[in-house]
Amino acid sequence: MLSSPPQVSRTNSDWKRIIRDFEQVLGRRNVIQRKEELLTYECDGLTSYRVRPKLVLLPRDTEEVAETVKLCDRYQLPWVARGAGTGLSGGALPVENGVLISTAFMRNILDIDLENQQVVVQPAVINNWVTEAVSGSGFYYAPDPSSQIICSIGGNVAENSGGVHCFKYGVTTNHVLGLKLVLPDGSIVDVGGEVPEMPGYDLTGLFVGSEGTLGIATEIRLRIIKQAEAIQVLLADFTSIEAAGAAVSDIVSSGIIPAGMEMMDNFSINAVEDVVASNCYPRDAVAILLVEVDGLEVEVAENAKRIAEICRQNGARQIETATDPEERLKLWKGRKSAFAAVGKIKPDYYVQDGVIPRTQLPYVLGEIEKLSKSYGYPVANVFHAGDGNLHPLLLYDNSIPGALETVEKLGGEILKICVQVGGSISGEHGIGADKLCYMEQMFTPVDLETMQWVRSVFNPQGLANPGKLFPTPKSCGEAAQLKSQLAQENPNVDLF
Amino acid sequence: MLSSPPQVSRTNSDWKRIIRDFEQVLGRRNVIQRKEELLTYECDGLTSYRVRPKLVLLPRDTEEVAETVKLCDRYQLPWVARGAGTGLSGGALPVENGVLISTAFMRNILDIDLENQQVVVQPAVINNWVTEAVSGSGFYYAPDPSSQIICSIGGNVAENSGGVHCFKYGVTTNHVLGLKLVLPDGSIVDVGGEVPEMPGYDLTGLFVGSEGTLGIATEIRLRIIKQAEAIQVLLADFTSIEAAGAAVSDIVSSGIIPAGMEMMDNFSINAVEDVVASNCYPRDAVAILLVEVDGLEVEVAENAKRIAEICRQNGARQIETATDPEERLKLWKGRKSAFAAVGKIKPDYYVQDGVIPRTQLPYVLGEIEKLSKSYGYPVANVFHAGDGNLHPLLLYDNSIPGALETVEKLGGEILKICVQVGGSISGEHGIGADKLCYMEQMFTPVDLETMQWVRSVFNPQGLANPGKLFPTPKSCGEAAQLKSQLAQENPNVDLF
Repeated sequence: MLSSPPQVSRTNSDWKRIIRDFEQVLGRRNVIQRKEELLTYECDGLTSYRVRPKLVLLPRDTEEVAETVKLCDRYQLPWVARGAGTGLSGGALPVENGVLISTAFMRNILDIDLENQQVVVQPAVINNWVTEAVSGSGFYYAPDPSSQIICSIGGNVAENSGGVHCFKYGVTTNHVLGLKLVLPDGSIVDVGGEVPEMPGYDLTGLFVGSEGTLGIATEIRLRIIKQAEAIQVLLADFTSIEAAGAAVSDIVSSGIIPAGMEMMDNFSINAVEDVVASNCYPRDAVAILLVEVDGLEVEVAENAKRIAEICRQNGARQIETATDPEERLKLWKGRKSAFAAVGKIKPDYYVQDGVIPRTQLPYVLGEIEKLSKSYGYPVANVFHAGDGNLHPLLLYDNSIPGALETVEKLGGEILKICVQVGGSISGEHGIGADKLCYMEQMFTPVDLETMQWVRSVFNPQGLANPGKLFPTPKSCGEAAQLKSQLAQENPNVDLF
Repeated sequence: MLSSPPQVSRTNSDWKRIIRDFEQVLGRRNVIQRKEELLTYECDGLTSYRVRPKLVLLPRDTEEVAETVKLCDRYQLPWVARGAGTGLSGGALPVENGVLISTAFMRNILDIDLENQQVVVQPAVINNWVTEAVSGSGFYYAPDPSSQIICSIGGNVAENSGGVHCFKYGVTTNHVLGLKLVLPDGSIVDVGGEVPEMPGYDLTGLFVGSEGTLGIATEIRLRIIKQAEAIQVLLADFTSIEAAGAAVSDIVSSGIIPAGMEMMDNFSINAVEDVVASNCYPRDAVAILLVEVDGLEVEVAENAKRIAEICRQNGARQIETATDPEERLKLWKGRKSAFAAVGKIKPDYYVQDGVIPRTQLPYVLGEIEKLSKSYGYPVANVFHAGDGNLHPLLLYDNSIPGALETVEKLGGEILKICVQVGGSISGEHGIGADKLCYMEQMFTPVDLETMQWVRSVFNPQGLANPGKLFPTPKSCGEAAQLKSQLAQENPNVDLF
């Protein structure tokens, strides 16, 4: 039922006509066809997959997107939408002989309505710009992926992006009120609206996280929220993972909802200390917890006191707190530079992304340690502990033949454990081209079929982002083949 | 594209065979066919529409639901699922010559997982039972429709029910983690799961609020949350609607998120005072605001102080506060009995349900007053001010010919205004059979078509709850006809 895009063989004169048509809609400058210019678009943040698109198209508004998509439909051209290209699962990987529709020129904030706490943006508006536009009035846009200064809202919508503060504030889907969409047949549809409760099916929720397979969002209505009056950060160090995990559970079940709650293991702590050399975290801690609370001054003070107590009851050796911005930044510094620090230990690392029920933290971290030992590859754990969103960093050296494949296998085993304990194969990075093969571990054939029927409603010809999100009988084998081929062809390229 | 259920004419012996097949699946006692027993199922909370089903079927678990639905599919029988039947938009109105699938015997709480804060229930579990099951451990289920002691979770899921506390805590969709579904072809599908972030399309969100048109939820995984440490209620009275509306806006834009924020106008206040005679609210207030804040003791005290200040700045004459449960109940008493009180002024009332952006409150209430005068029917306003969810109560006397029709027209005009200011034709009661005609005011043909394509994926033959949610070319005329026919046939029945 999942349509593959039609395989149409086109002559040079076919392409000339197609290009001329696109140029008529978009102008010559906005149809990119030179090989050296196309290079930039061969991959997104998942650099191990590369496909050169035939053309890159740069529409400037909803109507141009609609006309572009209509031409794709007319010529049966597979197409992929791309925002800032920072995604980590290959969601914006182009299709061979297909076109890439870049939203890069759609970067206007269209409306700011402070009274009703909403902002309307075009898809290439950078995540952080939204907050910058409203922070003077005391508001901000809550979802904060770590790439927030470079990633686009359109991409956030496609991937339903999360971030450090999503435990309290929710992921992207909780902050999108409405969308203007161009569907794969070129029709323009409005879903959602100015008020959150709308009758009929929640197509806004359906679209958020659909990874480019249902259409392109050309206008996005976002909810903004009021900045908290006070923020405090606590750093607690533990001598066992179990103790840190128990503290996380106890904090949550006490009713406190921290703005963020991050955990780092001993390996990451030492990587940070080696590289950032900041005397940030105690080197002998088996795990540290960073907990941020926000709200009213009185509320923050009270919650911080209670969190400190809970950490102590669970055996925390030492608890540091910080309220003023500079001190808070100091406590966060190690966490924020953890990926970079770990990356200096080995030439390459692979970030896995999985979710587990919070109560399974100690068990799953133990299993990861066992796997790490049996595979002989170090794994650093830095993750969103509040929502059980793990980000194991698998270290390897890509110049050693077979290392990449082994590390991928290890990453896959970690995902299997996540699924086994009732979790998910992706918390915030998406499935894209990277995790197709794991979808069948998580969903039954009937579950996947149901999703694909929904896809077929919007995308009946399979032209919109083919080969993503859903496994096809061949896709897993093909992906592995493509990747190993790429690794051989580009021995010096950092494949992760 | 919206399939109407096939019109199959069946002989008595056809029905005998159908009944025998259902009895084989469900047992004889669980296939109701006697007219006097079927009476109960002719309508839900919207008593002005009545249709007698051919049969009522009472499956006891997912498998029996699946077998039941498969038989409906085989015999091309249109079917309607029904929970507790308290819905106010006729979502559970049966279909002529169709069957009603009642979930009444599926009322078990299947799992309580306090550590991961979730509960799995069957669809006929009453909303309030969930809280009762976990309150001993300090948890509760947040969505609280005013019918919460009699309405079922399955119905809440179908209608995406709200309640007084939804401004802070969200509506049903924000509290459903996963569903086991029986689709109209009888297949069983699991959507969502134990962790909130799942890859693929958000079919859980799609299903919640789909008003029985996509299938039946047979198991529902709900999020439970921790009870707040403290609660305080404030009552502020105002001499103008504008002032009360401005106070609402100022409270929200100050960053405070009250657990509930309700407004009542002078008409409702006096109705309450006349009937409940409680000295609850000042009779000369043009509007009162009831604001509930919850959280930590210190937080509640601070927020209550700020809310009182904001109300005073906006001209509130008097502010009462209550913290202990008994006093809080006293302040809430008038609000909770408002519908009943208003109902005593005239023999009949019609509750409208619409949503507007909060900032439009004063304008819309002014327009409602003008309409009320020009139609000559009193309108009482009692509503969720925080989320702009209006519940105008239109008073009339059904024994006066034409009164019902006029009041319905007035109700429709109010909805038009809601849509004009960027709002919605339903906040929490749903579209059902009652508001089909207004869908076209809110959505473009393409928007509606897109939703109906989605419907056609799950419900290709139109057997699941036909004639609900989406207008058909004929439906508006038919509904009006049916209603006026019923009014003539049942002059003494309370049609609202």
